[in-house]
Amino acid sequence: MKKRAPSIVLLSGGLDSTVTAAVARRDRPRNPLALLHINYGQKSEARELKSFRRIADFFAAPCRLTLDFSHLRKIGGSSLTDPKMKIPGKHPGSRIPTTYVPFRNANLLAAAVAWAEVIGADRVYLGVNEPDSRHYPDTRLEFIRAFGRAVRLGTKPNTRITLHAPLLRLRKSGIVRLGYKLGAPFHLTWSCYQSGSRPCGRCSSCLIRGEGFQKAGFPDPFFPEKSLGRKNSRALNRK
Amino acid sequence: MKKRAPSIVLLSGGLDSTVTAAVARRDRPRNPLALLHINYGQKSEARELKSFRRIADFFAAPCRLTLDFSHLRKIGGSSLTDPKMKIPGKHPGSRIPTTYVPFRNANLLAAAVAWAEVIGADRVYLGVNEPDSRHYPDTRLEFIRAFGRAVRLGTKPNTRITLHAPLLRLRKSGIVRLGYKLGAPFHLTWSCYQSGSRPCGRCSSCLIRGEGFQKAGFPDPFFPEKSLGRKNSRALNRK
Repeated sequence: MKKRAPSIVLLSGGLDSTVTAAVARRDRPRNPLALLHINYGQKSEARELKSFRRIADFFAAPCRLTLDFSHLRKIGGSSLTDPKMKIPGKHPGSRIPTTYVPFRNANLLAAAVAWAEVIGADRVYLGVNEPDSRHYPDTRLEFIRAFGRAVRLGTKPNTRITLHAPLLRLRKSGIVRLGYKLGAPFHLTWSCYQSGSRPCGRCSSCLIRGEGFQKAGFPDPFFPEKSLGRKNSRALNRK
Repeated sequence: MKKRAPSIVLLSGGLDSTVTAAVARRDRPRNPLALLHINYGQKSEARELKSFRRIADFFAAPCRLTLDFSHLRKIGGSSLTDPKMKIPGKHPGSRIPTTYVPFRNANLLAAAVAWAEVIGADRVYLGVNEPDSRHYPDTRLEFIRAFGRAVRLGTKPNTRITLHAPLLRLRKSGIVRLGYKLGAPFHLTWSCYQSGSRPCGRCSSCLIRGEGFQKAGFPDPFFPEKSLGRKNSRALNRK
């Protein structure tokens, strides 16, 4: 019997990547899930790794890999990795926020594709989405397409590794609805840009998540008793 | 006065990347050289790093960065990083040799471009060349072009980072000639796939270097007393 090629999912442990893993499982239920977690020195890493492990157990993923990317912290230039820079609460209008990690997705994809060549995976799933991160240049469809072309040309001729970004066009509320439909383990995810026992509820990632659950009309299982209030939701500068 | 944008050069410490640094200096003599050395767990790393430092001093490069990429070793799949795999002496015909490090150049370029965004560099130089490594898919012009497009689309709109591979079409003898013309410090370089006090003279990298100096008609300053013999040179399966 032919061995089924694994599907690699870049899984931070956040909401988007967890729903992406659920999509990968739905797309090809019998192909092994290969989950890749990358620590790039972000402030939330300790908590994200915990989520990654629980989510990998939830999906019973047979292949798991965690990689240390502390070089992105050394390169710097982002409030997510620089201890001296404060993580902002709101998106600063049309400018690129300090939470942008320079060329991060290219770095993550390059490692995922290298792993794909080694384990014979033919798909790499990435949970990027444009509407909620339209200020980040490396989450746009055009970038993913161009990188996909570099993958086709820069890997062994007998490989056919394709990139998949199933959430690309969805808003957070759409991602929440899709996740509910697919039974994604929201209760195991971590979205906050900070680490801790509870999400801060103030960073842009917490705010966008809260608004997403609210708009989708579902409770956030991380906060079953209450969703993030309207006031916080309004604080989002996302016209 | 306008600050001149740095030129980043990916500098392993080998012959090709050293000549590439000399080209970058010639292209824009007054722009600062930013030299990036990446340790990806290759067996020759200890010796390469020594060469990198000496070459950076030679060029009096004001910006230097060394990054740890041991994740490429963890991902594996190459005799350059796997202690259990033997580095072959000859290129095995038309197949991709085990010295291929899966999607390595994409990983190196992604980090270089991230650094370029942070320090405001507008050029990234890479010492790849097709004729001497035509079995490596990530050294081809088409790949470099596609990656360049991903760079344009995936970095901040106000950046204009271009990729430069000035040795792309040259054979090793042409690289040697160009290096001599530009005064590249050949005596400080390290090309061997192994570490040690002297190059092994048997790995494909040593053989190609030896042949390059021989064909160019120059002595290799690393071996001023003798160049690698004809016998070794013929061992190359590079018709």
